[in-house]
Amino acid sequence: MPTIKDVALRAGVSRSTVSRVMNNQPYVDEEKRKAVKQAMKELGYLPNSSAQRLRGTETRTIAVLVSRIVNPFFSAIVDAMDEVAAEQSYRLILCNTRGSANQELHFLQLLRTKQVDGLILASLVNDWETIAPYTDYGPIVICNEYPRQSDGVPVVTIDQSKAMYEATVHLLKKGYKQIAYCNPITKTESDAVISPLAQDRYLGFCQAMEEAGMHMYGECLFLGHSLEDGRNIFKQMVCLANRPDAILTGSDEVAAGIIAEAKAAGWKIPDDLAIVGFDNQPHATLIEPELTTIHQPVQEMGRAAMERMLALLRKESPPPLATYLEAPLLARKST
Amino acid sequence: MPTIKDVALRAGVSRSTVSRVMNNQPYVDEEKRKAVKQAMKELGYLPNSSAQRLRGTETRTIAVLVSRIVNPFFSAIVDAMDEVAAEQSYRLILCNTRGSANQELHFLQLLRTKQVDGLILASLVNDWETIAPYTDYGPIVICNEYPRQSDGVPVVTIDQSKAMYEATVHLLKKGYKQIAYCNPITKTESDAVISPLAQDRYLGFCQAMEEAGMHMYGECLFLGHSLEDGRNIFKQMVCLANRPDAILTGSDEVAAGIIAEAKAAGWKIPDDLAIVGFDNQPHATLIEPELTTIHQPVQEMGRAAMERMLALLRKESPPPLATYLEAPLLARKST
Repeated sequence: MPTIKDVALRAGVSRSTVSRVMNNQPYVDEEKRKAVKQAMKELGYLPNSSAQRLRGTETRTIAVLVSRIVNPFFSAIVDAMDEVAAEQSYRLILCNTRGSANQELHFLQLLRTKQVDGLILASLVNDWETIAPYTDYGPIVICNEYPRQSDGVPVVTIDQSKAMYEATVHLLKKGYKQIAYCNPITKTESDAVISPLAQDRYLGFCQAMEEAGMHMYGECLFLGHSLEDGRNIFKQMVCLANRPDAILTGSDEVAAGIIAEAKAAGWKIPDDLAIVGFDNQPHATLIEPELTTIHQPVQEMGRAAMERMLALLRKESPPPLATYLEAPLLARKST
Repeated sequence: MPTIKDVALRAGVSRSTVSRVMNNQPYVDEEKRKAVKQAMKELGYLPNSSAQRLRGTETRTIAVLVSRIVNPFFSAIVDAMDEVAAEQSYRLILCNTRGSANQELHFLQLLRTKQVDGLILASLVNDWETIAPYTDYGPIVICNEYPRQSDGVPVVTIDQSKAMYEATVHLLKKGYKQIAYCNPITKTESDAVISPLAQDRYLGFCQAMEEAGMHMYGECLFLGHSLEDGRNIFKQMVCLANRPDAILTGSDEVAAGIIAEAKAAGWKIPDDLAIVGFDNQPHATLIEPELTTIHQPVQEMGRAAMERMLALLRKESPPPLATYLEAPLLARKST
């Protein structure tokens, strides 16, 4: 396999000139730059990291597990991770688990069989006891969803309880009385798992309701995470004896589905029904009325998770174990 | 490395029982199933495909190049590709080129260095002469964007000219006179490339305008592909001496950006300005007014492209070279 030295010899320049050209640095004579590029092409020279990969020392590949890449929250988080990874010449294997515990375990094998250098869990369906043994095979970072105990694995997320508490207080202050709640559940083929993230959000909701002396009704609890789920939730709400006057959802997609159906049925928002989303996805300000929602700092979350991963791969001083980013409520016209 | 035989011996069952457990088949005694799982765990047994990978015969990995994973069109096409790939135990490396010709070439190295079994181009920035040599290293499939000549490489796309022709005729029939046009340009760091896809759409537009004896004005030509671009386009339009009464865009994101700004400026849609999107993304029916757009069959495109790839990898009879899927206009309330 040709080396920098071979390229330098063929191009008739110094080795440092070759490395300046490779790294796109300034102050290289244009003729020399051309000669180096030509020599690299003729020799079939591979930059260092590729050559290293061929020698099998590392894959420069990181697996990222998400439950649904078509959810704008996940495509944005993957985009942010990819941006940080690319700066250090790492690539991502996209692991779209579709909420399946089996698929999640299938992708964890990538770490065990050394097909990736590290693995980031942006979704998490299995119990931590099932995941934990894989930490023996390489670095794992957790982002967004999280377990109760992470055995030294870095976690990057938001304070879910606080975010939902603030959203609930916002509705209570506005005078809404019959507040419905939608748990952000990913229905797997086996059963619906209430993750710690979903539990914590629900706790924030219950705490605010309790403090205000408000009652919760079982019939006002819904499950869902997609646009279609939102549409169905509205249809269920219409049939209730005591109709909710507001609903808290776990995703802007669910909220958008509810709004679309409610408007189609002639309901006025927020007069007949107030709606709170979660995420602050790009469409939150495009729909009408603009959606009150919790802003998830998705860029920062994705970047921070990947930075933790790169720190682990460089075997530097260990990154912080738990990172809770701010997730403010953005009050708009749907409440 | 342990084999099925080792697992069978340790679990005290037959080899066929082990393989039935591995493939989740019915009619296996629950005790035996547990014994097999336990034996697999204790021996560190890897299912066949992983073991094959470790022997280096294949990577079971396919690279997919997209320009922006946060564009719902691309996340949907990747999702569809992933679904087909997963059925055959293939994984995707997500290659987010951000419209950079350099990044595109960087990812093509994955094929050359045998780090992936095949590569699908859902975005394409470089000239075909630059890409073509990589077909020596493994199968390539083209999807969405395409070159004028593809030298035997399968292409899956829609008839771009026809789609834009029909959208233009729709506006003309509605009586719009001053029709603006936005080219779906990905601005790279170097320059704005007008791809064959963008050229063909523009041809469809020009043909319909010519047939109707309508004039095109240079000042009514815009560039852009994102929500933000759409917002900026509206601001430019406002300043024109002859304001357009309709605009054709190359993406629902651009259309949504224009609608958001137009409404904020007090314009009535479609009375003051008619808007046509492209793609039929999920938010097209959520915004107000609902967006007239061209439905890109993104599920079918993604699936067909991956099926072509799997056929090439199986070295079966060659898949069809050019596939043009139907992309009907969906007339809604924005026109």
